[in-house]
Amino acid sequence: MGRIFKERTPVDEALRLFLENISTLKKTEEIPLEACAGRVLAEAVTSERDVPHYRRAAMDGYAVRASDTLGASPANPVMLQLSDRIEEGSSGWVHTGAAVPEEADAVVMVEDTATAGNFVEIRAQVYPSRNVGQVGEDIRKGDLVFEKGHLLRPCDAAVLASLGSGSVRVFKKPVVAVIPTGDELVSRKKSADVPPPGKVLETNGLMTALYVNKWGGIPRCTEIVPDNPESIKNAVETNLDADMILLSGGTSVGKRDHAPEVVATLGKLLVHGIGASPGKPAALGIINHIPVVCLPGYPVAGLVALYFFVRPGIRKLAATPEIPELILKRRLAAKISSKIGYINFIRVVFEGDKVRPLTGAGAGVLSSVAKADGYVLVPEDIEGYDEGEEVDVFLIE
Amino acid sequence: MGRIFKERTPVDEALRLFLENISTLKKTEEIPLEACAGRVLAEAVTSERDVPHYRRAAMDGYAVRASDTLGASPANPVMLQLSDRIEEGSSGWVHTGAAVPEEADAVVMVEDTATAGNFVEIRAQVYPSRNVGQVGEDIRKGDLVFEKGHLLRPCDAAVLASLGSGSVRVFKKPVVAVIPTGDELVSRKKSADVPPPGKVLETNGLMTALYVNKWGGIPRCTEIVPDNPESIKNAVETNLDADMILLSGGTSVGKRDHAPEVVATLGKLLVHGIGASPGKPAALGIINHIPVVCLPGYPVAGLVALYFFVRPGIRKLAATPEIPELILKRRLAAKISSKIGYINFIRVVFEGDKVRPLTGAGAGVLSSVAKADGYVLVPEDIEGYDEGEEVDVFLIE
Repeated sequence: MGRIFKERTPVDEALRLFLENISTLKKTEEIPLEACAGRVLAEAVTSERDVPHYRRAAMDGYAVRASDTLGASPANPVMLQLSDRIEEGSSGWVHTGAAVPEEADAVVMVEDTATAGNFVEIRAQVYPSRNVGQVGEDIRKGDLVFEKGHLLRPCDAAVLASLGSGSVRVFKKPVVAVIPTGDELVSRKKSADVPPPGKVLETNGLMTALYVNKWGGIPRCTEIVPDNPESIKNAVETNLDADMILLSGGTSVGKRDHAPEVVATLGKLLVHGIGASPGKPAALGIINHIPVVCLPGYPVAGLVALYFFVRPGIRKLAATPEIPELILKRRLAAKISSKIGYINFIRVVFEGDKVRPLTGAGAGVLSSVAKADGYVLVPEDIEGYDEGEEVDVFLIE
Repeated sequence: MGRIFKERTPVDEALRLFLENISTLKKTEEIPLEACAGRVLAEAVTSERDVPHYRRAAMDGYAVRASDTLGASPANPVMLQLSDRIEEGSSGWVHTGAAVPEEADAVVMVEDTATAGNFVEIRAQVYPSRNVGQVGEDIRKGDLVFEKGHLLRPCDAAVLASLGSGSVRVFKKPVVAVIPTGDELVSRKKSADVPPPGKVLETNGLMTALYVNKWGGIPRCTEIVPDNPESIKNAVETNLDADMILLSGGTSVGKRDHAPEVVATLGKLLVHGIGASPGKPAALGIINHIPVVCLPGYPVAGLVALYFFVRPGIRKLAATPEIPELILKRRLAAKISSKIGYINFIRVVFEGDKVRPLTGAGAGVLSSVAKADGYVLVPEDIEGYDEGEEVDVFLIE
């Protein structure tokens, strides 16, 4: 009793230590293109085809031999005979995307022509290859189309399909075990009634599972585990086949907080206590190369640990490439006071073109997050921001 | 033949006209909280419970009557007897989140105490309600928790769960029919072999379906429809039970471009020809109150129409609330030249802290999108941007 946090690791240092201990998963799987959006390529893709695979008309118009159009102009058109087979002095209609007949080497766009009986009047001179897409002009056989590690988007699926692929090899999604702990917890699956005093419905597991899913992991939720080291140890050991383990609750330094010590017993506790408010009791560890995050049971503190550690952890496991972080710049509608020595996670709501901090909501008040549109992070060494100051706002997703 | 676009509607005007004709869907469904992330609430949620539903200790420590701690300090502690039942002169251990015994009105945090046998030494004075979360402090019975139209996030699911909800009523996702048209198209489902010259694998339908899904719609893909007005008309008519119809291909002004005229025949063609490059041949219409977009068959032009019209259209149908658009500011590694009178959709790649435009890639070259990380939109009245200028970059998702 009376234990307090002896240390408090700065968030960036804690994250660095954590990521250093995480290896990207090597497991891959072949999936249909219909399911590939958001997945990461496990191997480079080179084309086995030329795209286009034939000489393609780039315009609606008339296929010609360019040499036949020499000097053609509106005032001085050239007359060519319409024919299916192009030869000197003849021409044939092609629509955009059609194959240009072998003997033709250019297309005169329809706007520069007029038809008269069996003849077409060519009103513009074209050079060889004009309005003709050459074989392999878009993608050449043997070209590297995507590098390994590329994050697949819907437009990329279309490119792969155009190469004749029906499926693609991607990294498997990490399986993330979500283990809610706490004697006070009651499963909402068993009864949604108001629990007796001192008991609460378990809800952090649901929130965590939905974030894991959103960030590209496959959540695997366990039953509620009581607050004793043996039970937590068993729960962790039966989930060592997962790629990441999240223990929710029991991370602080009270009598009933056993999660970090279980991690230390089974593996290595990297960090216990971080410089974030809320979020201080979070712990990070590694057991058998499997990253473990102890999420504080207070829901807002748990959310902070999810954002700070679980999201980047899943991204590293899944080989998700870095994308530039999208940040909004907004002015504050009211001042923010912040605790020195901690990154302060301040929930904010949009108010016109400003943001207003939600004050007076502790780490236990999840409804403050429900009200919030986003958050502002106040660095450790700053006491806060003044009204009217411009701050970086992150959306709560 | 020889028809050209008589008009060219500016993109913002086209979008305004299109959205004006779209009504948000009224259809709703009840879904489990496990599936609610990203969905939009179809009704306001008010709480039927107090949260917390009991007086909750906010700290590990000793429940006391505040009046018993009067004047307590480290130098001058107050001794209280340990007891399960609190009365004058006694105190009992509570952990964070536990119910505070009825007779107690405050909690002294463990750091301000020491135990000695059957007594606890209280070293700090507390005022009534100190470290005690009152009933309904987070959410009060009858409180409006979420408004109708709220976009549900994982943290919101936890709030709903804490109120005892297991499910939630949301707007149904719009069903979007995706109809690829074109005599040149070959189904990649039937054969992935290289098609004969003049034929190409159908891939726009796949790209469109994956974007529809990403943006919150349910794609419903049809077979390839040949380039004749009757077939296109039939395909549209059999999909009038959808919430939006997307026709891919046949949108230009060539002999084989029938999509816009079919829309005009069955309903109202709002726009044909937009001030975007690529993307000019796009058309927008309404048939029986169902929004219809004719996507150009050229894949990059089709992508532009998806971004400009289909994404906002689906959002309006689905009642998805506006979120601030996230934009990156980057300097150009090379100049951009742009066509006056059109919004130019310039694909760019990241290059250090700059972006480099991908030049020389026409509307037909989807591989240019595969290479691109994002795009820059050059407004109609600007000829381009100089090297080194700062531009707004949108990520290609």
